[in-house]
Amino acid sequence: MRPDVVRPSNRAADELRDIRLTRDFTRHAEGSVLVEFGDTKVLCNASVEAGVPRWLRGKHQGWVTAEYGMLPRATHTRGGREASRGKQSGRTLEIQRLIGRSLRAAVNLKKLGEFTITVDCDVIQADGGTRTAAITGGCVALVDALRYLQRERLIKSDPFKQLVSAISVGIYKGVPVLDLDYPEDSKADTDLNVVMTESGELIEVQGTAEAGAFSRAELNAMLDLAEQAGEALRGHQREALEIRD
Amino acid sequence: MRPDVVRPSNRAADELRDIRLTRDFTRHAEGSVLVEFGDTKVLCNASVEAGVPRWLRGKHQGWVTAEYGMLPRATHTRGGREASRGKQSGRTLEIQRLIGRSLRAAVNLKKLGEFTITVDCDVIQADGGTRTAAITGGCVALVDALRYLQRERLIKSDPFKQLVSAISVGIYKGVPVLDLDYPEDSKADTDLNVVMTESGELIEVQGTAEAGAFSRAELNAMLDLAEQAGEALRGHQREALEIRD
Amino acid sequence: MRPDVVRPSNRAADELRDIRLTRDFTRHAEGSVLVEFGDTKVLCNASVEAGVPRWLRGKHQGWVTAEYGMLPRATHTRGGREASRGKQSGRTLEIQRLIGRSLRAAVNLKKLGEFTITVDCDVIQADGGTRTAAITGGCVALVDALRYLQRERLIKSDPFKQLVSAISVGIYKGVPVLDLDYPEDSKADTDLNVVMTESGELIEVQGTAEAGAFSRAELNAMLDLAEQAGEALRGHQREALEIRD
Amino acid sequence: MRPDVVRPSNRAADELRDIRLTRDFTRHAEGSVLVEFGDTKVLCNASVEAGVPRWLRGKHQGWVTAEYGMLPRATHTRGGREASRGKQSGRTLEIQRLIGRSLRAAVNLKKLGEFTITVDCDVIQADGGTRTAAITGGCVALVDALRYLQRERLIKSDPFKQLVSAISVGIYKGVPVLDLDYPEDSKADTDLNVVMTESGELIEVQGTAEAGAFSRAELNAMLDLAEQAGEALRGHQREALEIRD
Amino acid sequence: MRPDVVRPSNRAADELRDIRLTRDFTRHAEGSVLVEFGDTKVLCNASVEAGVPRWLRGKHQGWVTAEYGMLPRATHTRGGREASRGKQSGRTLEIQRLIGRSLRAAVNLKKLGEFTITVDCDVIQADGGTRTAAITGGCVALVDALRYLQRERLIKSDPFKQLVSAISVGIYKGVPVLDLDYPEDSKADTDLNVVMTESGELIEVQGTAEAGAFSRAELNAMLDLAEQAGEALRGHQREALEIRD
Amino acid sequence: MRPDVVRPSNRAADELRDIRLTRDFTRHAEGSVLVEFGDTKVLCNASVEAGVPRWLRGKHQGWVTAEYGMLPRATHTRGGREASRGKQSGRTLEIQRLIGRSLRAAVNLKKLGEFTITVDCDVIQADGGTRTAAITGGCVALVDALRYLQRERLIKSDPFKQLVSAISVGIYKGVPVLDLDYPEDSKADTDLNVVMTESGELIEVQGTAEAGAFSRAELNAMLDLAEQAGEALRGHQREALEIRD
Repeated sequence: MRPDVVRPSNRAADELRDIRLTRDFTRHAEGSVLVEFGDTKVLCNASVEAGVPRWLRGKHQGWVTAEYGMLPRATHTRGGREASRGKQSGRTLEIQRLIGRSLRAAVNLKKLGEFTITVDCDVIQADGGTRTAAITGGCVALVDALRYLQRERLIKSDPFKQLVSAISVGIYKGVPVLDLDYPEDSKADTDLNVVMTESGELIEVQGTAEAGAFSRAELNAMLDLAEQAGEALRGHQREALEIRD
Repeated sequence: MRPDVVRPSNRAADELRDIRLTRDFTRHAEGSVLVEFGDTKVLCNASVEAGVPRWLRGKHQGWVTAEYGMLPRATHTRGGREASRGKQSGRTLEIQRLIGRSLRAAVNLKKLGEFTITVDCDVIQADGGTRTAAITGGCVALVDALRYLQRERLIKSDPFKQLVSAISVGIYKGVPVLDLDYPEDSKADTDLNVVMTESGELIEVQGTAEAGAFSRAELNAMLDLAEQAGEALRGHQREALEIRD
Repeated sequence: MRPDVVRPSNRAADELRDIRLTRDFTRHAEGSVLVEFGDTKVLCNASVEAGVPRWLRGKHQGWVTAEYGMLPRATHTRGGREASRGKQSGRTLEIQRLIGRSLRAAVNLKKLGEFTITVDCDVIQADGGTRTAAITGGCVALVDALRYLQRERLIKSDPFKQLVSAISVGIYKGVPVLDLDYPEDSKADTDLNVVMTESGELIEVQGTAEAGAFSRAELNAMLDLAEQAGEALRGHQREALEIRD
Repeated sequence: MRPDVVRPSNRAADELRDIRLTRDFTRHAEGSVLVEFGDTKVLCNASVEAGVPRWLRGKHQGWVTAEYGMLPRATHTRGGREASRGKQSGRTLEIQRLIGRSLRAAVNLKKLGEFTITVDCDVIQADGGTRTAAITGGCVALVDALRYLQRERLIKSDPFKQLVSAISVGIYKGVPVLDLDYPEDSKADTDLNVVMTESGELIEVQGTAEAGAFSRAELNAMLDLAEQAGEALRGHQREALEIRD
Repeated sequence: MRPDVVRPSNRAADELRDIRLTRDFTRHAEGSVLVEFGDTKVLCNASVEAGVPRWLRGKHQGWVTAEYGMLPRATHTRGGREASRGKQSGRTLEIQRLIGRSLRAAVNLKKLGEFTITVDCDVIQADGGTRTAAITGGCVALVDALRYLQRERLIKSDPFKQLVSAISVGIYKGVPVLDLDYPEDSKADTDLNVVMTESGELIEVQGTAEAGAFSRAELNAMLDLAEQAGEALRGHQREALEIRD
Repeated sequence: MRPDVVRPSNRAADELRDIRLTRDFTRHAEGSVLVEFGDTKVLCNASVEAGVPRWLRGKHQGWVTAEYGMLPRATHTRGGREASRGKQSGRTLEIQRLIGRSLRAAVNLKKLGEFTITVDCDVIQADGGTRTAAITGGCVALVDALRYLQRERLIKSDPFKQLVSAISVGIYKGVPVLDLDYPEDSKADTDLNVVMTESGELIEVQGTAEAGAFSRAELNAMLDLAEQAGEALRGHQREALEIRD
């Protein structure tokens, strides 16, 4: 990192925030994980329900979907309650579609049988990176829901394919940095969300130039940072899930 | 209590669940309290905003209001997300109106000046009594928001009037019991929510015969239980707020 | 009553307004009653429909529900039309839930068979106490709908359990008074709605301190007034329905 | 009328139903008229409010508009409550637009000043012809609202231009008939609603072939019937309003 | 035409605008027609779907319906997008109900079998008369959809009954004129939309006095103009559909 | 391209579809462009309105935003009309947010002054790649709107920064291909939308693994294809706008 650029958090350019995954955070959901990326805290509850959406009936497969919400005062200033306004914002819908697509990559839907798993990701406190935290924590909750299905002998074979994790990277004051918090995110020139498989391949790449544009070289530098972080994220997931290598 | 009636939780008829009030649970809200009545957990965030609703403008007073929500998987089975369905249920609106009316009894709105305090009560985990927990915890968050206004010298005099707390009582298998949890609540003959002032007077009394009806004698027995619990609830609030008698 | 307190209507503290129940007010509904509590006029239409809501199917029982509305100019100033605004207010939903719960206490749902009775309570003119008028008149319309089902031999046994009636009481200028009209209601310190069975037991008790709080003694004084009025209300219902004691 | 065609009501082809206009039906509205065309009963409340819609501000004129609704059980079978469904049907919107346009023809909007008069037409009981009854009765309520404005000296000159009335005509079993009730309306080949000025000129003509089509000759026969009825309708309006010729 | 009245377009009083019907304008719909009445351009797509609305099930007949929309910038100033506002305006619903009723007159619904044909009429560019253009063009798209059903042997007999066309007429500066464009429409005293069958009989007549009123003589003059235009409109439809007389 | 993989359209792997940009497609909008990428046809209308959204007032800058819609029968099977369903889908909101962010990169908002330009992108016919076509065509419409503002002397300096264009790339049967049409898009393993500046830098990169995952090498191969296509796209834009190099 250029010696003259200091991150607001004093982190190194390639340094993740403290990451914590607390399983069984609430007691009703089949999978319930509180994920913390520093001060960003998202409750991910995976719910198992028999049946699939209408358009999948009779296709002998299951479905994984996600919903996303932010408590009104998860942020610096209070945002209106979407339930009260009567509709979800475009941002909310965009994020929950991303989470759903990402989590489906973790599961063999054929082996899931005619069950739907809904992963509710509710932001308790926001400090940047809520969607990547939601994917990383939601995957752990999802695995718990799959384990529940097997433990209860509701399905025969294990639908788990691979861990899926996500991280944001960006260009902050000209320097590629990992895992942006809100003070960085709100001033970054470019913001990139990367969703990865267990083998480090890519599931989703969403990069946005908030100001100006970014070059192929910058994109590559950001992807390098994300790639390196992937192993650490999967380590946290494996540890939480007590998966040995 | 009749010797043959045992509460599912083995509590005595007049025994409260473990009550916990955790202040500063999240960091953005001017008041942020996690209230726990046993397994019922509600996050109460009080937000201060300049200005008042249109119909109060120019009347030289403030406003206190509440919003209530339940995370989709706060309950045994997943409930639909109200933001996604596009409207709040009648139950939600009924509860948030009750919380708002109750909390306004804690504040001198004239002294509040032209500020609005919104207390968001979001149920993280439900096990009966969410509305009474929300009032009891919301009052603590509200006091923190009032203290914020004074600390920041945004208002001159203290608008705090009195602590407001609430508890549910019911008739379970013919016996009046205090602080119903979900297994009791779902089988109770009668359900009564009582909101009280610091001096033990009544702000709201809402009793419903879920099956049959109830007599004046039963109503009085339930009110006696609530009255006795009031002192304990206010003790928890005072301890959390470090108010000395 | 304290000699210095005069009710705007000059009524005695325990004096009901003129109460009128006009059956067959409209001709299509199976039960159609115009109920008048003084200048408060509510049209209560009970409609019989085959079938029950989805969550009751196959449970061999019927359902009774209520909907409440106010014509836009039932009040002093015009209120927006809820159909045009696209949603029912919290107040409307709260009231129609109360009416529905209350009227279900009048009926043995098992004996009703798989029929749904919807009692539409539409306020033609408002002068305080619309919800209690709606319950008292709605119960008469409901009985007419039950009689229709028997007359048409659609059900075998009589599902009628008991008459249900309701009245408001309040503390006006420090004095407990019965059956508040709008001028009293808008200035009352406390407002209590009481729903009673035919034997005078309680179905719903909803008391709200509009300003300050109320004591157990005041609550009891208000309940006494409601209890005394119950017999008169049931007398009006019996007379309208030509039920002999 | 062809001797072999008998109207369900036994009326002659050019015979109106009993028409009644009851002023001051409710007490809050500036104009309140219950209009009855036989068994069709519509409550028309005209409300005066200061101000005009945004798009008319500063144009030194007033506005007249109408809203239409049907109580859920005004009809043979219960219709859903529009407020509960969250939107007004196309039929409702079409009718209230027609009523609004028609009533504006009765008023000189320039002389009305910056006031809005909303005429709420709520159908208490339906038996065909609700929109034409609403226009005929709504005009009387509107005149009462104009008189209120003058009596209260809120406007200086009289904005009243002319009486507006409306009637339905149709082809029933091949015969043109006046003022269709529901049994005729539901079987008519053609349905025509005619709105007329005091001098018998046309404001709105809306004809629909429910089955097949209709000829210019049939249209003329229907318009003749409407024209003849106009004088009678205006007579009822004048009598109700105590206008002498 | 009075020599002193000149139409903004310099057309004669009984002169249609250039009318063009372009079939197969888009490639997915079973019938796709761009209809142009001068600068008014409406895309009419007829879609065939198996099944009928719930209330027609089991009645051995099909259904024809229409939906209408305007692209936000089809008009001089941008109108809000109805999808974004969350509801269709009263004007939109009124127009699509008119188009649907009119097009059903072209089809024998019994012979259509249990298919639904939806004719989407989307206004690409508006210059007055969009609803009459939509009916005239929509009928051609509808015929193409009927031909598709027969070509694919999905139905046995031809449900086509007759061509349906529509035109607007009005009183402009005191003179009856045919096929109003926007500059005329916005200043016309009276506006009449006429929907006609192939034999020139009437399906819908909707006349509105935008200012003042209109006489029977004026109505007849307008209907004469519409009647004369009918043959030309049907000529355009037959030519487009390659129907020989 | 691997010799055994043939694109459904027989195009080479790096071959664009026929691209056409037709300016002045409709006559009311300040910029109106029909963009065609093969059979994908999107009408892009740029509307200039005085004023800015509330949250930008007083900041001395303008705003550029986009709305996206699909005509119900733009696709193989009819999709419901969003205006009739009462809400825009998540897909619609996600796309219009992408278009808006992309087009803002073309404009210096400070120089735009307090004007809002809304670019409506309505899909007339869909065959894959509607969002990238919308950006490419929308940019041309936007430039026309900027020229209008200058021609009418509503702004002083030229707010145009650079052309913005977009293209989709994907992995189809293991081979990276450019500009996917619907048959490819629906079967592609990976789908990447790339938005570029005039100098070839990146504004948005959105890559999704529809099945499995993709490697860094595949991402680079796709970005190479997009980069090469950029020059051609900008050539079409420059030619349409008559911009000389």
